[in-house]
Amino acid sequence: MPEHQLEHQPLPEHEAAQLDAHWRAMNYLSACQLYLRANPLLSEPLRPEHIKPRLLGHWGTCPGLGLVYTHLNRLIGRYGQRTMAIWGPGHGAPAALAGAWLEGSYSELTPDAPRDAEGMLRLFRDFSQPGGIPSHTAPDVPGSIQEGGELGYSLAHAYGAAFDNPDLLVCAVVGDGEAETGPLAASWHANMWLDPVHDGAVLPVLHLNGYKIANPTVLARMPEEELASLLRGYGYDPLFVTAGPDTPPLTAHRAMAGAFDHALVRIGAIQDKARSGPPLTDAASGDRPHWPMVVLRTPKGWSGPREVDGQPVEGTWRAHQVPLAGVKEDPERLRQLERWLRSYRPQELFDGAGRPLPAVLECVPEGELRLGSMPEANGGRLLRQLPLPELEPYAVPVERPGAGSHEPTRVLGGMLAELMSATEERRDFRLFGPDETDSNHLGGVFEATERGWQAGLEPTDEHLGRHGRVLEVLSEHLCQGWLEGYVLTGRNGLFASYEAFANLVSSMAAQHIKWVHSAREVPWRRPIAGLNYLLTSHAWRQDHNGFSHQDPGFIDHVLSKSPDVVRVYLPPDANTLLCVADHVLRTRDTVNVVVAGKQSCFDWLDLEQARAHCARGLGVWEWAGTERTGADPDVVLACAGDVPTQETLAAASLLREWLPDVAVRVVNVVDISRMTHPTEHPHGLSDTEFDAVFTRDRPVIFAYHGYPWLVHRLAYRRAVHEQLAVRGYRELGSTTTPFDMVVRNRMDRYSLVEDVVDRTPGLGSRAVGARQAAADMRERHHRYVHEHGVDMPEVTGWRWTGR
Amino acid sequence: MPEHQLEHQPLPEHEAAQLDAHWRAMNYLSACQLYLRANPLLSEPLRPEHIKPRLLGHWGTCPGLGLVYTHLNRLIGRYGQRTMAIWGPGHGAPAALAGAWLEGSYSELTPDAPRDAEGMLRLFRDFSQPGGIPSHTAPDVPGSIQEGGELGYSLAHAYGAAFDNPDLLVCAVVGDGEAETGPLAASWHANMWLDPVHDGAVLPVLHLNGYKIANPTVLARMPEEELASLLRGYGYDPLFVTAGPDTPPLTAHRAMAGAFDHALVRIGAIQDKARSGPPLTDAASGDRPHWPMVVLRTPKGWSGPREVDGQPVEGTWRAHQVPLAGVKEDPERLRQLERWLRSYRPQELFDGAGRPLPAVLECVPEGELRLGSMPEANGGRLLRQLPLPELEPYAVPVERPGAGSHEPTRVLGGMLAELMSATEERRDFRLFGPDETDSNHLGGVFEATERGWQAGLEPTDEHLGRHGRVLEVLSEHLCQGWLEGYVLTGRNGLFASYEAFANLVSSMAAQHIKWVHSAREVPWRRPIAGLNYLLTSHAWRQDHNGFSHQDPGFIDHVLSKSPDVVRVYLPPDANTLLCVADHVLRTRDTVNVVVAGKQSCFDWLDLEQARAHCARGLGVWEWAGTERTGADPDVVLACAGDVPTQETLAAASLLREWLPDVAVRVVNVVDISRMTHPTEHPHGLSDTEFDAVFTRDRPVIFAYHGYPWLVHRLAYRRAVHEQLAVRGYRELGSTTTPFDMVVRNRMDRYSLVEDVVDRTPGLGSRAVGARQAAADMRERHHRYVHEHGVDMPEVTGWRWTGR
Repeated sequence: MPEHQLEHQPLPEHEAAQLDAHWRAMNYLSACQLYLRANPLLSEPLRPEHIKPRLLGHWGTCPGLGLVYTHLNRLIGRYGQRTMAIWGPGHGAPAALAGAWLEGSYSELTPDAPRDAEGMLRLFRDFSQPGGIPSHTAPDVPGSIQEGGELGYSLAHAYGAAFDNPDLLVCAVVGDGEAETGPLAASWHANMWLDPVHDGAVLPVLHLNGYKIANPTVLARMPEEELASLLRGYGYDPLFVTAGPDTPPLTAHRAMAGAFDHALVRIGAIQDKARSGPPLTDAASGDRPHWPMVVLRTPKGWSGPREVDGQPVEGTWRAHQVPLAGVKEDPERLRQLERWLRSYRPQELFDGAGRPLPAVLECVPEGELRLGSMPEANGGRLLRQLPLPELEPYAVPVERPGAGSHEPTRVLGGMLAELMSATEERRDFRLFGPDETDSNHLGGVFEATERGWQAGLEPTDEHLGRHGRVLEVLSEHLCQGWLEGYVLTGRNGLFASYEAFANLVSSMAAQHIKWVHSAREVPWRRPIAGLNYLLTSHAWRQDHNGFSHQDPGFIDHVLSKSPDVVRVYLPPDANTLLCVADHVLRTRDTVNVVVAGKQSCFDWLDLEQARAHCARGLGVWEWAGTERTGADPDVVLACAGDVPTQETLAAASLLREWLPDVAVRVVNVVDISRMTHPTEHPHGLSDTEFDAVFTRDRPVIFAYHGYPWLVHRLAYRRAVHEQLAVRGYRELGSTTTPFDMVVRNRMDRYSLVEDVVDRTPGLGSRAVGARQAAADMRERHHRYVHEHGVDMPEVTGWRWTGR
Repeated sequence: MPEHQLEHQPLPEHEAAQLDAHWRAMNYLSACQLYLRANPLLSEPLRPEHIKPRLLGHWGTCPGLGLVYTHLNRLIGRYGQRTMAIWGPGHGAPAALAGAWLEGSYSELTPDAPRDAEGMLRLFRDFSQPGGIPSHTAPDVPGSIQEGGELGYSLAHAYGAAFDNPDLLVCAVVGDGEAETGPLAASWHANMWLDPVHDGAVLPVLHLNGYKIANPTVLARMPEEELASLLRGYGYDPLFVTAGPDTPPLTAHRAMAGAFDHALVRIGAIQDKARSGPPLTDAASGDRPHWPMVVLRTPKGWSGPREVDGQPVEGTWRAHQVPLAGVKEDPERLRQLERWLRSYRPQELFDGAGRPLPAVLECVPEGELRLGSMPEANGGRLLRQLPLPELEPYAVPVERPGAGSHEPTRVLGGMLAELMSATEERRDFRLFGPDETDSNHLGGVFEATERGWQAGLEPTDEHLGRHGRVLEVLSEHLCQGWLEGYVLTGRNGLFASYEAFANLVSSMAAQHIKWVHSAREVPWRRPIAGLNYLLTSHAWRQDHNGFSHQDPGFIDHVLSKSPDVVRVYLPPDANTLLCVADHVLRTRDTVNVVVAGKQSCFDWLDLEQARAHCARGLGVWEWAGTERTGADPDVVLACAGDVPTQETLAAASLLREWLPDVAVRVVNVVDISRMTHPTEHPHGLSDTEFDAVFTRDRPVIFAYHGYPWLVHRLAYRRAVHEQLAVRGYRELGSTTTPFDMVVRNRMDRYSLVEDVVDRTPGLGSRAVGARQAAADMRERHHRYVHEHGVDMPEVTGWRWTGR
């Protein structure tokens, strides 16, 4: 049976009473945020005009979160333990705000809400008001890095925060609602990657509140033995703290203090052993530590109204949101609200001016140890510029465009290895991915570090070790959640994924973008490092995976979100990928999506050219076209992405041969947002610059990596838009050869030639032959693939015929 | 310690030998799919020209899957147990194809691949070839409903298939790779919802293959006691079957047969007790059954090459894909491949013509009991038209447009309740959602059924019971996975979600769309019911949730996928929602996204009008405009979605008052794909029809529910496109009032009036006053919200001023 901690602890009565005063203040402030627009101290009887016009907010989770806040205060104060809290349950903002206001953090960061009656009222009024603070722990909430709007990421964020923060304790309060989500369920296993030597500790507090909006929760309705078995199976030592509506508060405080004390002692022992003792053995059975966690079972809406109109509320789903509605209209309800609020005895908590009394603040730690003032929770305060390597040693030589070829991600892997080495001591850079670092040809990093792993090691493992900074788990949700937690606490990282499977975390990405966008509007938030995706194994090269692995839609998804945050790069070759990677690792408050192939691809630009090209974001490749100086070309061939670039350059070569009189301009786009009007994205080119590249009226045949309409959308306001034809991935995928893929989606070189013939006016009869030659070649290839099962070698290369 | 089953079973030796022959045939056929393009029976020495030009495929998971296939055959044959298999591990197609070919299902469905040498070779050649069969269990694979490309959904699919299939056993093979994903981790808990009376059984087989592409797996590296604790915590009784490279095959077969026998006996006991004994008690401690499961630990690439070039392969990550590469080029490798393939003794498995020998087929069941011929795995064979209710009793009366208002989802709830009642016996309709049926105002269904739940019940629970057909779990992944499994096996359902959080399953939705699209190209697949989403609690009404809950991008996401499958509907009021719901529940091979509000909204159309409007998909609302018959209007106000419709009609009213001479046409769009050109979506209007509604050259001000560029994209090829201005959600969200939300995103009635003034030529000075009046009203409202925290009542209604 799980060990209950209720009666064990020698917490002195006066300390328990002080903790209880703090907790009552937490509950009072939480409840008042839902209800009051005046009379914050209840210094007069409650009248309808003191009540907000609309009651919006959630009470149910607050008392439990308040209890955790109170006891984290005690823990921090008593042991001087640097601690960060992550509030997982949904709608927990009132409790986190109450704690930050009580300890003074809120007022220091929000000077118009001082720690007195006026500031208290300001807090109450701002909560859930138009343009105010949402009911989630949005970036406005001091000490928070997790919004808690879309549930399920608290534990992943906590582990991300703990990596490479050896002195930090991250307390992750996990709601039993969010615990039903997939990402949260998978996150328990994250202890398999937590290195007790270099990482901090995560202390999960599973809050069994019992109900969600309407339903009981899975973990709360399990027999306790079954829950204990589950949590032990997840690798934890659970400590159970249970309190019912009739538990005397001091008993609850003793249990909670005891559990936290016990957990901290156990964490210390694990860390001491790992840091001073012999290293963990490699035994398959594993002697990895089983970290403590707390299971806190309390009634939903604890200490709130027990019954309303004869219906039970405390401890039920009815306590989820506003437990007492209609208080403005119904005098009896108003009296019940007043009785409830006065049950916390506010006059014992605050002085006449609304300042918290000393006993209430006895447990509150000082300065940056306060939960709301933790530097890690405002990660930009700790962020340092990465020691990025010189690119020269990794750049591939390019004697002339397309003469050689490399695998771009493999080239990047070398540079990342040096970055790993350079951050060996600082440990502020990590690579995350689902078991694919090597498969994505980034294995070069294993020259400098290993994959981290705390379970058993076998002789057949490769590049697996206790302290590695490449974290691989077959869960894109975990990769994303860890990286978010890591960058939100002031560090840097890169998440490399199969392109199609980035869609698994599209919702998480949107939440992070929204978080960063909102945080930019919070004056005291400091800029954090960009969250970087490398999307590889992309749609065009799924030779045997086929249709289910072909989806370039993540680009569209992120580009529908806040343009002040989102950037998308499509480097066409190895050297441009190096430059893009160097750039994104320097950015702040961004989400960067880099799409690059892992298969061998022609080298077009040497490092110097690549640098210049990336600095512009897009540009004319004069050497690839046939235009004459001083006049607009007859047609523009534009491209973005490695495969489209190859097909476009091949089409330009064919045109040079077949239609030498046609003046062709070749444009390559690395930073797709350069296409956008500057009023819609900060990277947007001015119309003048744009027209100088794309012309105002010539046909533009654009071969694009993803869904074609994205380019239309971005270029929508440009003069040349009516002349724009975009080829791209049109959801016509299959298990097939690389060249057949571009043919199926009509983005192959021959189709591009046909587009030029069809859209360029004045070509006359000389174009008929070129069109026929293109169609013949495509048909020849089709027959070859059908017969041989592989691409016809002659059609997949690129032959230098240019200047 | 977990109980090992290796030595317990009295499987007769001759039966074990027959099973082993089947398993060897499975392995032979699996391996040959990767390698051979000729010489399928090895009737001559292997030569380079017998080898495929590119070796694409995955061997590692096949031997384990083959073992399960063999033993499911035995189980089915021995007990006559209707069984369906779900192959969770990635890249498992070769094994599933081998099983289907051996049992004859493959040849019956694919007549050009008969069960002889010619058909065998055809199978080998089709595998991983251009346009052929992918390495996942794509729809081409008989007996499959799960692609296994994007990992993590096998167990959710299995539960979905088992719901309301009381005589079915669904064996879900869970890969230890996919087990690391969030959705899979959450899926273990699905036994909390499996009703042993009305549902079938799920038998998970956790296949501990040991490695993923490069890494060990979490569950395989846990100490076995910890794994057992985890699985018991998940509510299962695990049976462990372990075999190493040196386990004699007959021992492994005995263990496997014993485990399956034991599991089936235990399942029968659970079902018998539930079906004939007293109902489960409501005790909080719960006496819900703990279902059996099998943990199958075998080496990755078992029975394949032990070593290659001195490196261990069998049992390591090196066995993941093609264990022996370069066989075409390297004679020594070719000889090693031949030795490996001959180790299965093909001459003992097939006769000279390539037909499997009788002993190999001894374990194979007959007819529709064969795994590859299960009707449930080709669900359209079992699908029946739903007994959809008459809509009249649920329709709201509409005396004149906008006179009354209703909550559309609440109205729908009544109709769904009748559908629940009408399917009480058939049990082929279910509602899925994350704890929000009541919160989304669909609680009417609880008149007819309950929420299903197998754990403890408490007196404070409402609408919770053992046999309910509303399934609520706070995991959109589970809701989606269950619904997919349910419709793929021939039933019907609806998934109601907060609009923003549908993005959580955008990747799953894409996979389902791709599956349905691919299945349409498989001749023997029968059409299945549409997969229906009801997106409510939408972007415009997140008054206290704010920015993190505002995301209409799911529409864009699905509309980027196969247009033959995807439909999106935006009913503007209660009666149109009824009509749309009635429609989508009749569709086949579709994914339908219905966006509808849960907040009170004006009733515009009576049932008859709504039916006609939905049949057209879009149409002119003459009563709302001011145009004269016989001439094009001066301006078109178009709208899609409930909030845009309200603002558009309000703008039309204002224009009637302020600019009575301007001829305004109001168009409402329900089926957004009607906007699309008919070459791009089957619902697209012809240009003639489109131009008749939208004109070819008048300004069109389109108020749209989601991101504005979607409408531009859909209407891109229309004559009027240059005149189109779209207002919609521009990612400018916050915690705020409903009207402030439309103002922030410039979709409010006053902004629409301004758009009309700015874009309609020839209005002259008379428009100046209207523009000023609009700006004044918006400013007045802004001040009011700032002061009062709620919307100004005068600006949020709609006043009938029309014909």
